Amino acid sequence: MQLIESLVSEKGGRILLAVLDGLGGVPRHNRTELEAAWTPNLNRLAARSSLGLTVPIEVGVTPGSGPAHLALFGYDPTVYQVGRGVLEALGIGVEIRPTDLCARANFATLGADGTVVDRRAGRITTKLCTELCDLLQEKVSAVEDVEVIIRPGKEHRFVVVFRGEGILDGITETDPLHAGLAPKKATALRPEATKAARVVNQFVSQCRDLLGDRQRANGVLLRGLAQPPELPGFRQRFRLDAAAIAAYPMYRGIAQLVGMTVLETGTSWADEAVTLKEHFSEFDFFYLHFKELDKAGEDGDFDTKVELIEQFDEEVLPLLLELGFDVLCITGDHSTPAVLKGHSWHSVPLLLHSRYVRPQVQIGEFGERACARGNLGYVRAEQIMNTLLAHALRLEKFGA
Amino acid sequence: MQLIESLVSEKGGRILLAVLDGLGGVPRHNRTELEAAWTPNLNRLAARSSLGLTVPIEVGVTPGSGPAHLALFGYDPTVYQVGRGVLEALGIGVEIRPTDLCARANFATLGADGTVVDRRAGRITTKLCTELCDLLQEKVSAVEDVEVIIRPGKEHRFVVVFRGEGILDGITETDPLHAGLAPKKATALRPEATKAARVVNQFVSQCRDLLGDRQRANGVLLRGLAQPPELPGFRQRFRLDAAAIAAYPMYRGIAQLVGMTVLETGTSWADEAVTLKEHFSEFDFFYLHFKELDKAGEDGDFDTKVELIEQFDEEVLPLLLELGFDVLCITGDHSTPAVLKGHSWHSVPLLLHSRYVRPQVQIGEFGERACARGNLGYVRAEQIMNTLLAHALRLEKFGA
Repeated sequence: MQLIESLVSEKGGRILLAVLDGLGGVPRHNRTELEAAWTPNLNRLAARSSLGLTVPIEVGVTPGSGPAHLALFGYDPTVYQVGRGVLEALGIGVEIRPTDLCARANFATLGADGTVVDRRAGRITTKLCTELCDLLQEKVSAVEDVEVIIRPGKEHRFVVVFRGEGILDGITETDPLHAGLAPKKATALRPEATKAARVVNQFVSQCRDLLGDRQRANGVLLRGLAQPPELPGFRQRFRLDAAAIAAYPMYRGIAQLVGMTVLETGTSWADEAVTLKEHFSEFDFFYLHFKELDKAGEDGDFDTKVELIEQFDEEVLPLLLELGFDVLCITGDHSTPAVLKGHSWHSVPLLLHSRYVRPQVQIGEFGERACARGNLGYVRAEQIMNTLLAHALRLEKFGA
Repeated sequence: MQLIESLVSEKGGRILLAVLDGLGGVPRHNRTELEAAWTPNLNRLAARSSLGLTVPIEVGVTPGSGPAHLALFGYDPTVYQVGRGVLEALGIGVEIRPTDLCARANFATLGADGTVVDRRAGRITTKLCTELCDLLQEKVSAVEDVEVIIRPGKEHRFVVVFRGEGILDGITETDPLHAGLAPKKATALRPEATKAARVVNQFVSQCRDLLGDRQRANGVLLRGLAQPPELPGFRQRFRLDAAAIAAYPMYRGIAQLVGMTVLETGTSWADEAVTLKEHFSEFDFFYLHFKELDKAGEDGDFDTKVELIEQFDEEVLPLLLELGFDVLCITGDHSTPAVLKGHSWHSVPLLLHSRYVRPQVQIGEFGERACARGNLGYVRAEQIMNTLLAHALRLEKFGA
C-alpha cells in the first residue's frame, strides 16, 4: 500500500463506499439471497458498472467485522488487529481514545470458596446489568489516577475502559473461561503493563466488595483487554476528507479508529441516506453502512435477508444514485449466508460504478455468480481503495 | 499460512482431495483432453459444485511432481524443496528416514583414461541393472559406519541412500554431465558435509573397483544428492488425520514426507477406490492419486488420456460420490498436455463440491474453459487446503 500512498493526489472525484453488511450468500433452492431478491435498480446499475468478487482476508478465511472493515478501508487486517475489548467498547458506543485500555466484562456468580459458579450470573436482565453498571460507575469512577468508564451491554455483558497515564495493554485476562475455577489475577506480559495489571486487579477487587452480598451477580470477569491499534490515518494515507455514516456504534467506531469523521445519523437506512445528502458537498469520501442484512443472515432468516436487499434496491439505491458520486462502490464486508447462520469465508459481490469502468452490459445482474463473470475478477478487499482512488482520478502515474 | 494454522479447529467434515495427475491439457482440434472426454458424471457434479483453475506454483511455471504436490498439500513449494535424489528414492519405493542422504545414480562407461565415454553405459537393460545393484549391495553394504542402500531403477538408473550419523547434504555431484570429462570428486559445500563427501567418494571408488573389468557398466555417477526437507507435519498444521492412497511409490513418498498415513493399496484405480472405502471412517482427510493420465500426456497420446478421463468418470467417480464426503475436490497437480508431451505451466481444472458452494448450474461442464468461467476464479494450488478446510467448517473466524 505504500506504493498507492506515494501516488495519491489531493484532488479528484467524490467516492461512495456503500457496505451491505454480510451481503454474500450461499444458495437455498439454487438462489443466494442476493440472487433471489428482485433488484431491478441494482441490475440496471450492474449493466453500467464493472463487477467482481472480493476476498475479505484470505481464501478460506471467515472474517469478523473488525478485520473485514479494516480491509475495506485499505488496511492490512493481519497487521492491524483490533482487540476484542476495543470492538466491544466501540460496539456499545464508548468514544475511545488512542491510549484507552478496553475490556469485555461479564457479571458472574462466585461461590463461597471464590470459584466461578456461573460465568454469566444466570444471564441477568439487561435492566439489572444497567443498574449494576450505574452502581459500579458511581462507586468506582477511578482506580489510583486512572479513570474508569463502565457501560452496560446486553444481559450479563458490559464494557470497562481504563483511561489514564501509562495504562498499556499486554496483560492476561481475569476470566478463567470455565466454571469451577477461581477468577485469575491479571498479570503483566511485559514490564510496561505492570501498572495496568495492578489497576485492573484493584478494580476487580473493588467490584467484588461492592457486589459481594448479591446472590447471582456478585463478581466480575474481564477479558480481551486491549488498546486500539495505532493506525496510520485515512486522511494522511489517501488525502481524503472521509465521513462515516452508520447506524450501529461499532462501525462508527472502526471508522473513527482510521480517522474518518463520524456523522450523526438516525437508526434507519432512510436516516443514513438523509445524512448523506445533507453532508454530500462537505467530504471527498463517504463510507455508508447497512447492518440489518447481516443480522438476518446470522439468524438463518433467508427471506428477511432477501427482503432487506430488495428494500435497499427500492428505497436506498435511487437516493444514492441521484446525488451524483464520481465513484460508487457497492459491496459487503463479508458473506453471512443464512444457510450457515453466521459469517463465512465466501467471496463477496462487488459493484464499481464510474464513467471510467468497462460496463457489463451483457451481464446486467448483481449476484454472486453474475459477479464471478465480472471483469474485475477476484479483488482482495484491501485493494478496493486503490480501485476507488484510481476511478476518482486521484492517483498519479507511477514512473515515466 | 500461519494465519490458517492459527484458525484450524479440531473437528469438522471429512475431506477428499482426488488428484488426477497431469489433468490439464491444451486443445487438439479445439478440444483439450478433458473437454474431448465424455464425462456425464463429472459434468453433473460440476453443476452442483464450484469451479475454478489452479496455478500450481506461479504463472508460467511448469512444476515437477514434487513441488506440485507440496503446493496441493498447502506447503510453499519454493520454500520446501524436495531434492532430486529424494524424489528418485521415493519413486523407487525406498522408505526414507529424515536424515538419509539420497542420490540418483547411473551406471556409466569409463574409458582407459578414466574419462566418461557413455554416461548411460549404453542404456543397459533393467535386468542387468538389477543384477549389478545386487552385486554392489552385497559387497558395499556400508562405508565407514554408514549404511548404504542400493536399489535398481529402469535401464542404467539406480538409487543410493546413505544412512548414518552425520551424513548431511551440501555436497557436489560426481556426474560431470558430459562425456569426455572425468567423474568429479564429491566436495563438501559446508563443513558439516565433509563426512558425507568422503563417504560418497569412497563408495564411488569401491564401485569402480568392483565393476572395473566390465566393458560397459564399469563406473557409477551420482547426482542430486539431498536429504528430505524438514516439513512441518500435516497433522500439526491442519489438525487432520490424513491418509494417502496412491498406487505409485513417489506419491506415497511425498505424502509420507508431510506426515500422512500411507495406506496399502493395489496397482489399479479400482484398488485405490476399494482401499478408500475400507478406511473411510478412520481418517478426516484422504489424498487419492491417479497416475496414468500423466503418462499418456508425456507420451503425447491424446486419445489414451481422453479414455483414462472417461474411465475415471465412469468407474471411479460414482464410487467416490457414494461414500458421502463433506468436501470433495477433484483437480490435478499440473497440466500434461499431450500436444506438449510433458508437464506444462498451464492452469489446472478445479472442482469443489460441498453443501456450502455456490453451484455452477449454468456451466454444468468440467473442462479447462468451463472452469475459467467458474466462481472460484484462479486459485493458487497452495491455497486449496484453505478452501477445503473452510468448506469442512474446520476454520474459526478471524477476529471479531
